[in-house]
Amino acid sequence: MATYRHGKDRPRPDSVGVLALEVYFPTQHVLMSDMELADGCPGKYTRGLEQEAMSFCSDREDVVSMALTVAKSLMDKYRVRPAEVGHLQVATESAVDRSKSIKSHLMTLWRRAVGGGPPAEGVDCVHACYGGTAALLAAVDWVESRRWDGRLALVVAADVALYAPGTPARPTGGCGAAAILVGPDAPLVLDPLWYGSHAEHSWDFYKPLGTLPYPAVDGPRTLVQYLRAMGMCGMRLLDRVQRAGELAPEEGVHHFVAHAPFSKLARKGLARLALMDAICRAAAGLSSYESYATWRLEDKELEAQLVAGTTLEWREKAEDGSWLQKQVGNSYTASVWQGLASLVWRQGAQLAGRRLLLFSFGSGTIASLFSLVCGPSDPRFTLESIQGVLDLGERLRARVRRPLEVFDAVSAQVVASYACPVPYEPRGDVADVAAGSYYLLRVDEHSRRWYGRKV
Amino acid sequence: MATYRHGKDRPRPDSVGVLALEVYFPTQHVLMSDMELADGCPGKYTRGLEQEAMSFCSDREDVVSMALTVAKSLMDKYRVRPAEVGHLQVATESAVDRSKSIKSHLMTLWRRAVGGGPPAEGVDCVHACYGGTAALLAAVDWVESRRWDGRLALVVAADVALYAPGTPARPTGGCGAAAILVGPDAPLVLDPLWYGSHAEHSWDFYKPLGTLPYPAVDGPRTLVQYLRAMGMCGMRLLDRVQRAGELAPEEGVHHFVAHAPFSKLARKGLARLALMDAICRAAAGLSSYESYATWRLEDKELEAQLVAGTTLEWREKAEDGSWLQKQVGNSYTASVWQGLASLVWRQGAQLAGRRLLLFSFGSGTIASLFSLVCGPSDPRFTLESIQGVLDLGERLRARVRRPLEVFDAVSAQVVASYACPVPYEPRGDVADVAAGSYYLLRVDEHSRRWYGRKV
Repeated sequence: MATYRHGKDRPRPDSVGVLALEVYFPTQHVLMSDMELADGCPGKYTRGLEQEAMSFCSDREDVVSMALTVAKSLMDKYRVRPAEVGHLQVATESAVDRSKSIKSHLMTLWRRAVGGGPPAEGVDCVHACYGGTAALLAAVDWVESRRWDGRLALVVAADVALYAPGTPARPTGGCGAAAILVGPDAPLVLDPLWYGSHAEHSWDFYKPLGTLPYPAVDGPRTLVQYLRAMGMCGMRLLDRVQRAGELAPEEGVHHFVAHAPFSKLARKGLARLALMDAICRAAAGLSSYESYATWRLEDKELEAQLVAGTTLEWREKAEDGSWLQKQVGNSYTASVWQGLASLVWRQGAQLAGRRLLLFSFGSGTIASLFSLVCGPSDPRFTLESIQGVLDLGERLRARVRRPLEVFDAVSAQVVASYACPVPYEPRGDVADVAAGSYYLLRVDEHSRRWYGRKV
Repeated sequence: MATYRHGKDRPRPDSVGVLALEVYFPTQHVLMSDMELADGCPGKYTRGLEQEAMSFCSDREDVVSMALTVAKSLMDKYRVRPAEVGHLQVATESAVDRSKSIKSHLMTLWRRAVGGGPPAEGVDCVHACYGGTAALLAAVDWVESRRWDGRLALVVAADVALYAPGTPARPTGGCGAAAILVGPDAPLVLDPLWYGSHAEHSWDFYKPLGTLPYPAVDGPRTLVQYLRAMGMCGMRLLDRVQRAGELAPEEGVHHFVAHAPFSKLARKGLARLALMDAICRAAAGLSSYESYATWRLEDKELEAQLVAGTTLEWREKAEDGSWLQKQVGNSYTASVWQGLASLVWRQGAQLAGRRLLLFSFGSGTIASLFSLVCGPSDPRFTLESIQGVLDLGERLRARVRRPLEVFDAVSAQVVASYACPVPYEPRGDVADVAAGSYYLLRVDEHSRRWYGRKV
């Protein structure tokens, strides 16, 4: 009996990848220079971290509302009908519930879906900042699997990065969301070969249950884990490409986009990749993955030289991809996808024929280095349409700059609302929620959360 | 430029599914009859819920330790080398951390992995009790994707179901874990066609952040959601099979395994499937999915008649699959996989050529009805080897029955440890941890959790 080998097994879909992309960031932001003034450390955040501003929101918005906002926005702007979506993966590390997934809230957008039914495939993916990439890979895998039913997949990542006042991590916060439509004949194709991953157990960043939303952070350890994972992923990608008999990859990358807690760290990451390329080409006497990838990792002087030595490469390959992240801050699972949005908005159709290298990192630790190739696509979804939809310049200009006191006061309210007695009535001003965005109406006496959409 | 169409694109692996299976439940259990005595409701839990006993553990064991235990046990018993595993998906709704995944803890089992490196693919899948199925589907999709590197995938599901004393849900608790090895040439093949899913937003069961581990439960609503989802999944599976030009599925199912908060609910589920078969065959005037699937869902008299009318079918097709669940209780994400273990242990090689229908449900709501077909397999992984490894009769006999007072006292300690000040020293007796199991040594002053393994 082999009835599971069905006669009508579909052929594999071609060129699976990113069809469409949307990002979300709230209306309010605080400038890094204002934060430097308040903290008495001029240049530390603007030149040291290479950040310009940081988005924030009140208790009116959370990861559920941001996920709703960005998913609805993508579907509206690209005219994707609910019935076209058959798979929905979500990523977060700022969940508001430990059992009810954000995915389940998003199902309200599919109330009237007909055809194959709502996108019943997919759940919330949790592993610190890596969840968005896990969600994307799961979506691509589904499209390439035998179970695929011909519909598209949607990936949604949303997070709020908030650190305790007075801690070194405070200026590396932010918040935001990203939505990615996945399917065949994509303008940004996931290359199945150019891929390297790394995972290990570490205690650099975590959120033990408690009454505060702040993570426990060992900052210096996270930075080392990030660069170490970059090295490990780089070596595994190279090994995979070489084993397949393909050319070494170092010549082929035109653009680099990275998960960026702050922009300077991504720059250090690119510098480490460049070092590894050099080591490989020189065929140094280093014999294993590990020794290549972690060579002199703690050497700050070497790091500074590498960063200086790769300034031109950074400008040419990575500045477009880090432009938005610098102004929005860390959006955790959405960060690398906001980076991709930044690149596509700045380059548009010029990306045709180009190869992008993306680095996704989650503390704890997990990371992937992977590649998107810009090819000919379904005319419905193109680099131009993504560029047009994103409209990032106008959207950033429409934000409101707040003094640091407002950020601190709003943050304090978010913290107070975190484990508050229910029922809870949010105190944030609905005037600060953008038109078209979802926001929290109230938390009822059973801890159920109710959301509305601002007209 | 189309360098992402690589020359050495692998052919699709054949017959992807469950290669090996292991379950875990702690040493201690309480009898439902003892609970009935204490609650003064004879027959309510044994005949009403059709449950016999419930596993529980102290604060020495949690979802991290159980995940470590079951993963290590599977790899040891089936002699799977760490380097053979390239993908690791985890499921839980009892996470101990909102950012650091269980997956990251499991990486300690791969410290010395060489070859392609550790299983860097995969994260924690969260959507109430459905997470284990989401993890399994993601693992199968990976093996069928172009990115697959030829290694095997491991799926781990672990949960603790603990309800507040004095609530109707209390006797539907339990705890446990399951590990599933996924790859090609499997003895239990996931049929890519026999598949129906359903998802919607509902507030039947959730875990809002707080200082208690108990979920918020609307029990009656969960039961309706379960049966409604069963109906919706059944109709979608039928539609999918018929659209593909294959025969209607109702004749082909030999065994039924379901997610079982308590055994009686799974029985009601089977009864609803039987009703839908009857409706479809009679071609009644019901015109849509929804009307078929939810027809007279609230009619308790109809339900009782259906359950009575399907007693023989239940005995023949489902009793073997619910046998273990009755004695262990609800293990949330692991429940349906403990059911599969139960069936394979009771039937072994007799399953050859048989078709199994599985139902996975998660509150909130998401559900899938899917099928495993028992075919010829890689001689390394067979129905016989799974049966031999599981050894469920002996393992259940080795458990220790505790009076209700012990269960209540141990549960109270688990609750007290949930959001306790750190550092925290667990109070549970290590003597109650089985040899070979992992257990919590301590939570340090930075909320880091340290685990050991009992020799």
